[in-house]
Amino acid sequence: MNVLNLLFGKPLANSDERGEQVGPLAGIPIFGLDALSSAAYGPEAALTLLIPLGFLGVHLIVPITTAIIILLVIVYASYRQTIGAYPQGGGSYTVATENLGTGPGLLAAAALMIDYILTAAVGISAGVGALISAVPSLQKHTLGLCLLILIVLTIINLRGVHDTGVAFMIPTYLFLATLLIVIGVGVVKTFAAGGHPTPVVAPPHLPPAATAISLWLILKVFSSGCTAMTGVEAVSNGVKAFREDTVKNARLTLTIIIALLIILLAGIAFLCKWYSIGATDPNGPGYQSVLSQLTSAVMGHGIFYYVTIASILLVLSLSANTAFADFPRLTRAIALNDYLPHVFFIRGRRLLYSWGIGALVFLTGLLLIIFGGVTDRLIPLYAIGAFTAFTLSQAGMVVHWLRNRGELGWRIRAAVNAIGATATGITTLVVLVAKFIDGAWITALLVPLMILLMVAVKQHYRHVKLNTMARASINTDNIQPPLVVIPVDRWNRLSEKALRFALAISKDIIAVHVESGLGDQSICAEWENKVSEPLRKAGLPVPQLVDLHSPYRFILGPVMDFVLHQEQANQNRQIAVLVPELVVTHWWENLLHNQRANLLKVLLLIKGNQRILVINIPWYLKGH
Amino acid sequence: MNVLNLLFGKPLANSDERGEQVGPLAGIPIFGLDALSSAAYGPEAALTLLIPLGFLGVHLIVPITTAIIILLVIVYASYRQTIGAYPQGGGSYTVATENLGTGPGLLAAAALMIDYILTAAVGISAGVGALISAVPSLQKHTLGLCLLILIVLTIINLRGVHDTGVAFMIPTYLFLATLLIVIGVGVVKTFAAGGHPTPVVAPPHLPPAATAISLWLILKVFSSGCTAMTGVEAVSNGVKAFREDTVKNARLTLTIIIALLIILLAGIAFLCKWYSIGATDPNGPGYQSVLSQLTSAVMGHGIFYYVTIASILLVLSLSANTAFADFPRLTRAIALNDYLPHVFFIRGRRLLYSWGIGALVFLTGLLLIIFGGVTDRLIPLYAIGAFTAFTLSQAGMVVHWLRNRGELGWRIRAAVNAIGATATGITTLVVLVAKFIDGAWITALLVPLMILLMVAVKQHYRHVKLNTMARASINTDNIQPPLVVIPVDRWNRLSEKALRFALAISKDIIAVHVESGLGDQSICAEWENKVSEPLRKAGLPVPQLVDLHSPYRFILGPVMDFVLHQEQANQNRQIAVLVPELVVTHWWENLLHNQRANLLKVLLLIKGNQRILVINIPWYLKGH
Repeated sequence: MNVLNLLFGKPLANSDERGEQVGPLAGIPIFGLDALSSAAYGPEAALTLLIPLGFLGVHLIVPITTAIIILLVIVYASYRQTIGAYPQGGGSYTVATENLGTGPGLLAAAALMIDYILTAAVGISAGVGALISAVPSLQKHTLGLCLLILIVLTIINLRGVHDTGVAFMIPTYLFLATLLIVIGVGVVKTFAAGGHPTPVVAPPHLPPAATAISLWLILKVFSSGCTAMTGVEAVSNGVKAFREDTVKNARLTLTIIIALLIILLAGIAFLCKWYSIGATDPNGPGYQSVLSQLTSAVMGHGIFYYVTIASILLVLSLSANTAFADFPRLTRAIALNDYLPHVFFIRGRRLLYSWGIGALVFLTGLLLIIFGGVTDRLIPLYAIGAFTAFTLSQAGMVVHWLRNRGELGWRIRAAVNAIGATATGITTLVVLVAKFIDGAWITALLVPLMILLMVAVKQHYRHVKLNTMARASINTDNIQPPLVVIPVDRWNRLSEKALRFALAISKDIIAVHVESGLGDQSICAEWENKVSEPLRKAGLPVPQLVDLHSPYRFILGPVMDFVLHQEQANQNRQIAVLVPELVVTHWWENLLHNQRANLLKVLLLIKGNQRILVINIPWYLKGH
Repeated sequence: MNVLNLLFGKPLANSDERGEQVGPLAGIPIFGLDALSSAAYGPEAALTLLIPLGFLGVHLIVPITTAIIILLVIVYASYRQTIGAYPQGGGSYTVATENLGTGPGLLAAAALMIDYILTAAVGISAGVGALISAVPSLQKHTLGLCLLILIVLTIINLRGVHDTGVAFMIPTYLFLATLLIVIGVGVVKTFAAGGHPTPVVAPPHLPPAATAISLWLILKVFSSGCTAMTGVEAVSNGVKAFREDTVKNARLTLTIIIALLIILLAGIAFLCKWYSIGATDPNGPGYQSVLSQLTSAVMGHGIFYYVTIASILLVLSLSANTAFADFPRLTRAIALNDYLPHVFFIRGRRLLYSWGIGALVFLTGLLLIIFGGVTDRLIPLYAIGAFTAFTLSQAGMVVHWLRNRGELGWRIRAAVNAIGATATGITTLVVLVAKFIDGAWITALLVPLMILLMVAVKQHYRHVKLNTMARASINTDNIQPPLVVIPVDRWNRLSEKALRFALAISKDIIAVHVESGLGDQSICAEWENKVSEPLRKAGLPVPQLVDLHSPYRFILGPVMDFVLHQEQANQNRQIAVLVPELVVTHWWENLLHNQRANLLKVLLLIKGNQRILVINIPWYLKGH
């Protein structure tokens, strides 16, 4: 337990719950890391697709970013309303289920689960990718580094929400501070230079245009850029983790996150245009990330540059943490509705849903291994889940307002959510079509499969519930002692103990002895002298001794057949099989004894039925 | 079961026993294969050490072989007497234990076990070695081929003694026939040519002498040649496997085996001298085995040559079978005296001691893997075990005759065995010294370790026996129903079933409910309505409901503590813990349910004691 305490912290009691809740300052790193860090890969992903357009591409980034920001504001307005309406935590799953019904709810659940897993995988792989572009010699260890970060994140998260907040606060605020300084200085310099600033370090020249502009290209660029919006839903899902007043704190946190994200996206887009900075081929030589070019252009190649790049690396790899904070809460909510195994709502030693974290780690690890830890290959699977969830959540909110027509301003609220639902719905379709061949088909395939799985789980639980539901009151008929069957190998202290217990609970006792016919003495005579005779004298019931013959030397088969036969012959009666068992002091001593007792217990459980019970009579060997 | 039947044959009843016994014709392949096949590597091993003496070496082989044959005759005479004195199977272990005491008996047991394992390993590796010298391209698969042969032998042997005899008869008799023809033709040709025959195919020229003759060299040659004697003890160990009259059949078999072995050894030695055939360097190019040279010299390089070589290959690799026939019988005898786990005397489906075969296969495989399947590396470990056993067995027989002084001719018999014991005792020392550095030290180390292990096993069994020994008669005092503890999660059909059983066997029942304090409703009210009230009305005892609080959300710990506390508070009383358990239809459904019932059962067994029993109340889910 000491190693556990050291790694994961000491167990927390239920009464420690309050202490684990957070305010906006800690909430931004916990729930906003994913959204904010995506500023580091969203614009880059869009600009990479614009490389073939050359100079024109750098100018196109401004209108496309504007479109994304507009979408972001719509989504923000929608989720702000959701937080107020669902202070218990209104993730898309809850909202869709409550307002649209089970089907859309499960669709949202499946989409979100996939998206959280991808958030973790992409965050980690992007962090490692950034690290590698700084230190190329690490390239061959890509997957190993990804898995190492996954393990570190797991340990940090198993310590609990509060510790996590502290661990992530410093890098997050460093990242925000440096990037905001770059943008601020860049904007001032641009205005001072009348719109044409001179870069401190000149970025690589933009290539000449290789293709013409097309609607299809713009859709693909927009789709890639939309990855910058993933993670926005995190706050609304985790409202419960906030300090009182939870709704106010959650809204404040969301507002700050979105405002910061807009500043980052807009700042990056404008500076790219003003400084003529485009993406470079990530697979070619001399690759340099957009943020790296931008920082050197504005601030030069000094210490500030390295601090900025380091904080980006750190925040990217830590952004996976949003998934750790939210995935277990989501699976808990789904499990509470019986659509996932119940272990997902059992809280672990640190008040966390450890099984949810376990499932996330396992699936993220699997994804990283399958895709070799390369971000480029993961991106096309991404964003569809998030936008499906956005759409369902907001459509659900529309229904919510229609149901609560009495509330002040319900019309405006419904309108806000309707606009949001429409915008994100269209975006979902655009992303799905634009990225289908590149990998979105995998997500499109996984979602229905997960829904099927969840439905199957639900059916099982319903079946169990119907099968085990309590009656109005306990059935008091036919309460009678069981027929007791004792397999007896030979007469010793074990069989004596079993027989004494049998005599204590019932009058009908059958001792069964299997005669394998290989020279072992019959125990009949001994039984008469040492058992039947003394019992008769003491006025106790005398058990029957049955000798079974086993020409093939099988022991368990004949005993099992005998028990099943007794069960048939004694309808309405329970058959209790007493299994005497030797309990040794050291595990290796088990090698010296046959495991018949254990095998018999397993066999009785598998082949038995409602009226057959197993009573285990342990005989503890004294130490020697 | 069908696959099992196909591979290993259908199960045999005890009454099939007689049909599994053999006569001399089948007995020679089964018990003599090891002894006879050693003619193919014994002389070769001796001649290899004689290479440095050149021409002189080829002449020395005749006196050395003569010494070995004299030793062989002495050992034969001794074992012939053993068979008569121990018709139940008088292996060295039995004879040494009965006449010399436990210590020498265990020494014989350890020596023999090691020797049987080496017999299997050397037989297989020598066969593969011979195959490789014929087809050099297979060299890189040495170990793989060894393990393949081991697997085939295992399957053949698990079918039972009778089937084994048939499978081995043809190659054995082919081997004997071809080799006897070669020797016969060679002898006739030599006499016809007046002692100087002309080889059909000339053997390689003998190298010039490189060293002088020395006593040390002769001792080493003798020690290596003695490997030809291993396996002689097999018949006396397996007397029981013979048909009536067992003693006569066993003696006849032993006589034939020894006679054939003497003819082979003498024939090979003389032909080597007459044809000037020496060994060639087994690691050098152009290596050719002695038997291969001899056959080509006498018979030429025709079809007969290939038939001979093929039968040698086959018999060598099958000679390992002697170990399969005898090792399980030996371990059974040791286990019957409690020095090895009792599984070694349980007969399997085909009337075999399957665990003995399993242990042999495992240890042989291990040995082959450690030594890479190379005979040269295994030979130095070999023979010490066999000669230790020979010595102890014959020394034991001397004591046997001294005890039975009345018997006719006991003096002569004692003398025969005394000569045998002395001769083999000296040989054991010679072999140990001559081969100590090359590998005999491993055997010298393993023997005491195995003795220690056997003594530890014996002590454990003695301890168990003392601990579980039956009293004069059953104790009829204080037979009273147990105090029943039922852990209740919530009130459903499972807990109802458990409670009904509890009511049937006792009046003192405590239901324990663990309150984890995470919003789960207390079951007190439901319990009163659905349980206590109806029971009171029916005039049945009302169980007590105990609510345990668990601030850290642990469930099993509090239940366990409660049970142990009850055990302390109720001296002289048994505590029966009823564990309701859901039994699902498919294994994967277990993933959807917590495994608390199973964990509790394990915990109760580990932390419990003599007065705590576990009663398993299964609830079978109806199929859906």
